[in-house]
Amino acid sequence: MRATIIHGAGDIRVENVPDPQLREPTDALVRVVQACICGSDLWPYRSMPRSEAGERIGHEFLGIVEDLGPEVSGFRKGDLVVAPFVWADNTCDFCSEGLQTSCRHGGLWASDGIDGGQGEAVRVPQAQGTLVRLPVAEDSALLPSLLSLSDVFPTGYHCAHTAGVNPRTTVTVIGDGAVGLSAVLAAKRLGAERIILMGHHKGRTDLGVEFGATDVIAERGEEGVEKVRDLTGGDGTHAVLECVGLLPAIEAAFAVVRDGGVVSRVGAPQYPAVPMDFSVFMGNVTLTGGVAPARAYIEELLPDILEGRIEPGKVFDRSVDLDDVADGYRAMAAREALKVIVRP
Amino acid sequence: MRATIIHGAGDIRVENVPDPQLREPTDALVRVVQACICGSDLWPYRSMPRSEAGERIGHEFLGIVEDLGPEVSGFRKGDLVVAPFVWADNTCDFCSEGLQTSCRHGGLWASDGIDGGQGEAVRVPQAQGTLVRLPVAEDSALLPSLLSLSDVFPTGYHCAHTAGVNPRTTVTVIGDGAVGLSAVLAAKRLGAERIILMGHHKGRTDLGVEFGATDVIAERGEEGVEKVRDLTGGDGTHAVLECVGLLPAIEAAFAVVRDGGVVSRVGAPQYPAVPMDFSVFMGNVTLTGGVAPARAYIEELLPDILEGRIEPGKVFDRSVDLDDVADGYRAMAAREALKVIVRP
Repeated sequence: MRATIIHGAGDIRVENVPDPQLREPTDALVRVVQACICGSDLWPYRSMPRSEAGERIGHEFLGIVEDLGPEVSGFRKGDLVVAPFVWADNTCDFCSEGLQTSCRHGGLWASDGIDGGQGEAVRVPQAQGTLVRLPVAEDSALLPSLLSLSDVFPTGYHCAHTAGVNPRTTVTVIGDGAVGLSAVLAAKRLGAERIILMGHHKGRTDLGVEFGATDVIAERGEEGVEKVRDLTGGDGTHAVLECVGLLPAIEAAFAVVRDGGVVSRVGAPQYPAVPMDFSVFMGNVTLTGGVAPARAYIEELLPDILEGRIEPGKVFDRSVDLDDVADGYRAMAAREALKVIVRP
Repeated sequence: MRATIIHGAGDIRVENVPDPQLREPTDALVRVVQACICGSDLWPYRSMPRSEAGERIGHEFLGIVEDLGPEVSGFRKGDLVVAPFVWADNTCDFCSEGLQTSCRHGGLWASDGIDGGQGEAVRVPQAQGTLVRLPVAEDSALLPSLLSLSDVFPTGYHCAHTAGVNPRTTVTVIGDGAVGLSAVLAAKRLGAERIILMGHHKGRTDLGVEFGATDVIAERGEEGVEKVRDLTGGDGTHAVLECVGLLPAIEAAFAVVRDGGVVSRVGAPQYPAVPMDFSVFMGNVTLTGGVAPARAYIEELLPDILEGRIEPGKVFDRSVDLDDVADGYRAMAAREALKVIVRP
């Protein structure tokens, strides 16, 4: 089959790889219908050292079940399914606590001999725990929103959920990327009435407003921080959702959080230590978040999508065929596209 | 009156200062019966630059109400009262949320013209919100435990509480100082059945065992971390209570916390950034805690002391007269004493 291989920064190719086959009785084979490119895929796209062999890439996909191992129940060939971006048995103690990203028998796509999502098919380990059946047809218009369940929307939701967002909390979202906008939508769904979005790409923050942002702050750095403080009587907000992962973003987060509040971060942190000065200690500010256990949220969020109450798939503003996946990366890295669907 | 003045590192003196007087209608005057020395008092004792004028010091005390401003109700002259280590109105929005350390009309003892606790008397601002009446006599044997309500025990309790300690959580306490031992007692009170205490002063960890520690780990650094992991099947504990404030302690905390767990810190951090490598993000570990709003916990903890269920005052192992307060500091800094009561 054909799959996406990254050979180094800026070097994305589509190559022939071995067809996936069932290996374990807990496996399933899924033909990919839609995959997508993640903001986190852009880190290796920007910095990976050159590699002759290259590496598989992609961890978000939905598709059709083509085959099932004998220990996988609850699915049939032909089912449309979505996979979270970490596979997991969904039965161990961590999974039972909703922390499938720490599953004792789970792992990551596109590493250790596991297929990546940006290809024609995927062998899915721990398929019964990993996959969630989607009760729509392969050509449903809901597919982009259902695809968003694999990573970006649950990641934004994890950010808002761990930050304790509810109808009584004010919220700041830092970052107008696809995760930040998903966090806005999540905060709205959790009842927040005041959602301040910090971002300076007009087209993106417009979608943020559609998703529920009540205020948009385009100013950066200290000026942006001052604006949030002005809007909140000097106090900052109860919850701050840091959806970038860079040092200035987490610094801004601590600068706009209210005493006793929570900073949650879901952008893969590109810094080794968190700047938390003495004021963070004196203000009893909590830092939470982390890699999102998407699997824990899919069943909760699915009905809202199926019944049309939310449309998180609006973060996808471009679609490419698998053969053009390199152009999808280029467009996202150049900020021409917010988030790109890949169709094998 | 006489009060403790610090003139620089190692230079503690008792000097005459103006007698406190009522200034605001919300003030009270309290004659100090017992005060004590805090681990945090040792930071200036070790590092403060020399000062001719010197500074007042001390923030833990209980005593007798000698006078009351006209807007203070609920107290009478002669009442025995304890003060938390931050004064507060106990009515503003932060106080209502249990965050009296961020009170809109509160502040710290021994600064900005407010008396310190280590003296003969104190003008108490916002007295009605700050003080809590103690229904015992001035010569009660319970006084040390009641004095512990001003800071050290609620600080340990805040650590365990914000870490979410309950009967289903395993706990590691880092540090066998008075706060660490108080955190052990707090974790026990909150129902934890497994409490691992990391500390290497035998006399202190013995008190930790008396307070409820089920395991004591005397090894330091990587060796100590390995021991905790051995005791927990490699996972670490759900809650880690960091009661030291130094970099190696917070590093150890992240090394022994279970995925999805919580590190809470109440030791005033002596580091500008928190080392949180990528594994902390991947493990969804939360960092919480901060300066303890002691006032929020006093009424909850008081009955347990009055009825003899807990004896947090056991952390006091020495008592000095006010004139000998310098020797109290010396003894605590030299680790001859765990925590020292000062009697004016």
